[in-house]
Amino acid sequence: MSDSPARDPMVIFMPSGKRGRIASGTTVLDAARQLGVDLDSVCGGRGICSKCQVSPSFGDFQKLGIRSTPEALSEWNKVEARYDEKRGLKEGRRLGCQAQIRADVVLDVPPESQVHRQVVRKRAEARQIIMDPATRLYYVEVAEPDMHEPSGDLERLERALTQQWGLAHVKGDLRLVQMLQPALRQGNWKVTCAVYHGAGLGEARIMQVWPGYYEGSIYGLAIDLGSTTIAGHLCDLQSGEVLASSGLMNPQIRFGEDLMSRVSYSMMNPGGDAEMTSAVRQALNTLIQQIAAEARVDPGLILEAVFVANPVMHHLLLGIDPVELGQAPFALATASSMSIWAKEIGLEMHPDARIYVLPCIAGHVGADAAAVALSEAPNQSDDLMLVVDVGTNAEILLGDRNKVLACSSPTGPAFEGAQISSGQRAAPGAIERVEIDPVTKEPRFRVIGCELWSDEPGFAEATRATGITGICGSGIIEVIAEMRLAGLVDPGGLIGSAEQTGTPRCVPEGRTHAYLLHDASATGGPKIMVTQGDVRAIQLAKSALYAGARLLMDQLGVDTVDRVVLAGAFGAHISPKHAMVLGMIPDCDIEKVTSAGNAAGTGARIALLNSAARREVESLVTRIHKVETAIEPRFQEHFVAANAIPHATDPYPKMTSTLVLPVVSFNAASGGGEGGRRRRRRA
Amino acid sequence: MSDSPARDPMVIFMPSGKRGRIASGTTVLDAARQLGVDLDSVCGGRGICSKCQVSPSFGDFQKLGIRSTPEALSEWNKVEARYDEKRGLKEGRRLGCQAQIRADVVLDVPPESQVHRQVVRKRAEARQIIMDPATRLYYVEVAEPDMHEPSGDLERLERALTQQWGLAHVKGDLRLVQMLQPALRQGNWKVTCAVYHGAGLGEARIMQVWPGYYEGSIYGLAIDLGSTTIAGHLCDLQSGEVLASSGLMNPQIRFGEDLMSRVSYSMMNPGGDAEMTSAVRQALNTLIQQIAAEARVDPGLILEAVFVANPVMHHLLLGIDPVELGQAPFALATASSMSIWAKEIGLEMHPDARIYVLPCIAGHVGADAAAVALSEAPNQSDDLMLVVDVGTNAEILLGDRNKVLACSSPTGPAFEGAQISSGQRAAPGAIERVEIDPVTKEPRFRVIGCELWSDEPGFAEATRATGITGICGSGIIEVIAEMRLAGLVDPGGLIGSAEQTGTPRCVPEGRTHAYLLHDASATGGPKIMVTQGDVRAIQLAKSALYAGARLLMDQLGVDTVDRVVLAGAFGAHISPKHAMVLGMIPDCDIEKVTSAGNAAGTGARIALLNSAARREVESLVTRIHKVETAIEPRFQEHFVAANAIPHATDPYPKMTSTLVLPVVSFNAASGGGEGGRRRRRRA
Repeated sequence: MSDSPARDPMVIFMPSGKRGRIASGTTVLDAARQLGVDLDSVCGGRGICSKCQVSPSFGDFQKLGIRSTPEALSEWNKVEARYDEKRGLKEGRRLGCQAQIRADVVLDVPPESQVHRQVVRKRAEARQIIMDPATRLYYVEVAEPDMHEPSGDLERLERALTQQWGLAHVKGDLRLVQMLQPALRQGNWKVTCAVYHGAGLGEARIMQVWPGYYEGSIYGLAIDLGSTTIAGHLCDLQSGEVLASSGLMNPQIRFGEDLMSRVSYSMMNPGGDAEMTSAVRQALNTLIQQIAAEARVDPGLILEAVFVANPVMHHLLLGIDPVELGQAPFALATASSMSIWAKEIGLEMHPDARIYVLPCIAGHVGADAAAVALSEAPNQSDDLMLVVDVGTNAEILLGDRNKVLACSSPTGPAFEGAQISSGQRAAPGAIERVEIDPVTKEPRFRVIGCELWSDEPGFAEATRATGITGICGSGIIEVIAEMRLAGLVDPGGLIGSAEQTGTPRCVPEGRTHAYLLHDASATGGPKIMVTQGDVRAIQLAKSALYAGARLLMDQLGVDTVDRVVLAGAFGAHISPKHAMVLGMIPDCDIEKVTSAGNAAGTGARIALLNSAARREVESLVTRIHKVETAIEPRFQEHFVAANAIPHATDPYPKMTSTLVLPVVSFNAASGGGEGGRRRRRRA
Repeated sequence: MSDSPARDPMVIFMPSGKRGRIASGTTVLDAARQLGVDLDSVCGGRGICSKCQVSPSFGDFQKLGIRSTPEALSEWNKVEARYDEKRGLKEGRRLGCQAQIRADVVLDVPPESQVHRQVVRKRAEARQIIMDPATRLYYVEVAEPDMHEPSGDLERLERALTQQWGLAHVKGDLRLVQMLQPALRQGNWKVTCAVYHGAGLGEARIMQVWPGYYEGSIYGLAIDLGSTTIAGHLCDLQSGEVLASSGLMNPQIRFGEDLMSRVSYSMMNPGGDAEMTSAVRQALNTLIQQIAAEARVDPGLILEAVFVANPVMHHLLLGIDPVELGQAPFALATASSMSIWAKEIGLEMHPDARIYVLPCIAGHVGADAAAVALSEAPNQSDDLMLVVDVGTNAEILLGDRNKVLACSSPTGPAFEGAQISSGQRAAPGAIERVEIDPVTKEPRFRVIGCELWSDEPGFAEATRATGITGICGSGIIEVIAEMRLAGLVDPGGLIGSAEQTGTPRCVPEGRTHAYLLHDASATGGPKIMVTQGDVRAIQLAKSALYAGARLLMDQLGVDTVDRVVLAGAFGAHISPKHAMVLGMIPDCDIEKVTSAGNAAGTGARIALLNSAARREVESLVTRIHKVETAIEPRFQEHFVAANAIPHATDPYPKMTSTLVLPVVSFNAASGGGEGGRRRRRRA
């Protein structure tokens, strides 16, 4: 800065409000750097990348105490004119590296010009993702070789990155060294590098080099590796934008539907763990191909992937036999985050792509729970917050900024539509919403891919293409809760007969009854039924979930929670009302029950786009107090007691008419209801 | 240490002489640690590894001012007794971790108990290698998992290494994590780890784990990757001992005998560099198999390899197209040392073995020259020292502690026996020493694998198995030098006819003559001849070598050097006398010409066994001033001028009788001799 700051122009950057006196003739980019303003640049101020665009504001800004006129910046120069001609510069924009400051001025930095721009998340309560990816692009001009000053091309590139970008401890991957010489010569000693900042103690690694200024982008994958489904989001590592999301079934299902059966498979079959590892890695490669094709992105430009998974999936992904996770003391091979190469686990992305696997919390509370904690941040909450991530295993977090507890509960795959007679994964044609008229006991429903209810005109037409193929996880919760509300199911979970319920939709099925939700058999379509087995499967699953939450509440010494966040693969679609009717979650003001969607996947995305978040979650997991459901006797007690489906009460005043109907109890021996529960505990 | 040091026993460790008062009851191992004495231990003082053995000396040591009696140490204990019974403890030895100090004592630390023991090198002037390998073994006791304190097995292992060995920033390789859990349980939570200390900024990586105390050793390879031959030494990374040395021809010879023809091959053939890379990596895998078999070592226990190579071989090994090395400004892709994984270059050793490649000095002066500098240390010399590493390319270093210059000279493969009519690599049956009687012109010789000269009784019998198969590099130098001394070759390098020389061994061959060194054709064996072409090839090679040395001398402004060190694949066998007769090296007192053997290979071995030496050579290369022969006009001048074979003079008084014979000149037009040289320079 100049020696006479009082007479230098005053520059104010918005929206940060950062201000200071800057010597006349300084470029806007340099001024931003001097004032610590977050203004992007990949080309380092050479008028190539246009990332440093700003919008000057002119006028009399009384609140800011400044008057800004068009003469405050130097005139439009040749570089800007050429750029505008070639690619177009938005009205009112200037290139920060070209425009020089002449007088007092207010400069707006649009979001896309901020290095640490925010990634927009739709939920109001969600934490924002600040862009700070581990892998970034840098454009540099490299000194040419000189026989009298011998040095390798790599060393001159490293020096350029240090001098032009301030990067310390930069090294090239071996493959980078192999490709470097032609790139430097083709780019006439100007190249764009992708540098990975997550390697070891403060080291940075050059992963890729492009001749000249690289116009394209680089990509990263956030993957939630679940027991039943694998979900991936492909993100642009520069903008943070999600370009494609895709999922597939975990092919390990053929080795066992739940985690413990996979651990057993490994115990019983020598090499079984390697089989499962190979299966999941193959599926991941399919997913990578699929998601890259959907976004029309070269898989070779995917430079990073972040994984979250439960401990068993975590171990199987990494090629670790999960056998120790099947028996106390449930020792993880490693609980720490892992930074490895994609090729070490056989993933086909950029040949030197890096993988970051989030840390685990404990033997039964994995990197997926850590990711949920990162995404939903109970540790930053003033309210007491219960977060349940519903999947084949439920990860449960309870706490606030004072203390966070975590456990995992073996809900089984029923919530994901597996082990349900008409269950299927969430895909077009699957029933996802259900209502049952409490008087007529007639259902209406909606299927994925269609906005209409089944009793609305045009529904048959609109669903002709997809058909009505089954019930997805959120649908099964709704239908069973609605059956309970309509008096078709008693508190013990037993489906009544047609005589007991007064509807011919309750049909005999073996020694029990089933509810006929949809019958297309006349036209060769399926009969979609909710069987007694389905209700039992959901009862087991929801009891496990509820018991886990109760166990944490006991540990914290509380009877109620302030907020409930429902997360999980189908968390976005789950209905808080129905979850409460079913007794999946403890009682709570229904206004305070929200859906967080795939919070584990979001946690993965946060870790992908913000490398500081990796350090944050690594520290957070050490501070989460973990409760082991498998050895807590109270978990079993809560589990048994939670088997019943209590009558829905206060939260649903409009349902009162239904609820005053005498609650039928088809079979007292099923031990359902509060009375049954108490009796059992005393037995 | 105790509060009353004056009354504590005085302990003196020999040979270091380190002394101090130590509280009575302290173990010898702890005393050594307190006094900073270099006493080894792998098991950390648990009486398992026996690496901490010491020999107490008893008596009245007046010079040391101490009297030591057998009561100075605690009595032989159970651990020592058991160890002695099981494996035997040498007479007079104690286990340092068991024996406790009771009174004043002198303790000898035998070489094998020193961590930083010296590796014995035969040459008196050679620098000693101090053991300080990058990969070491550590025995640890790991805490068992505890459900209430969740942590991964890896984290508890890392903590044990930190607490029990003071290691910071320890991380496990992915494969280590995969193998860790069974090893910990099999070893009942006691394991031995191999930890690599060369990864990145102060990071240590656990590469391997064995249940319990691992009785075996770990190994490293030092490899000199030459254009013509590949030589490897397999070393024990604990003792430093060379267990096996082996070599093979570089299969890249089929793509071109010298470096420039290989660069040309790459230029002319798309994918040619990849072909050559693949060929050399295959050969290296053969070498690894061969050398491991010879030493009866599992190749999977070879945890490290260090490579030295000239720049073209360096690039081809690493998979970098060497095309830039074929044209000014001879830019290296990288001049820095490389730390990579063996699997990145397809080498079959331990699956996570690490590779260290020494840095290059410049485009024509490679990691092999850096290794020679490390081994011969001209930078530490008071004398002005000329080091020539003779191979297909000669690396030449000139300097002393003030300044070191380096260049590389394209000698071609003649010195290695290639391009020589009867040439072969140094192997049993190859002629390696030659004398020609100056009067009778009759030769006598020795072959590799036999101690007898060819005119001694029993020679025919002794060589029956190997035969006499050809002439190796050192043999060709001797025979041509002897031919010159015997007057069979004129100063211009022309072989005389039988009439001119007076011996029927000079036979016509085409338009020139050849010298018949050995004729076994009567019994179906070979005729071993030295042809005019052979003399020409050696003349070209030695001129290049001499010109390089002269060029450095010019640059330093000197006419003579104090010492000459001959190194190279056949450097151990080269005869200084004959090298000087041929004019390979500048004149120097013959007493000051020594052979260093394969100095590049030794440099590789130093870097393998001493990780500080890696930092040393990385720094050294930046301080060596490099001279580029390819663009120095004076190199061409020296080269042309050095073509003649000057008459040998002063250094060989006993040869005077030969030398006073009139020096024949068969063909003045060949322009040989001093006169010819002068004329050329003026032309």
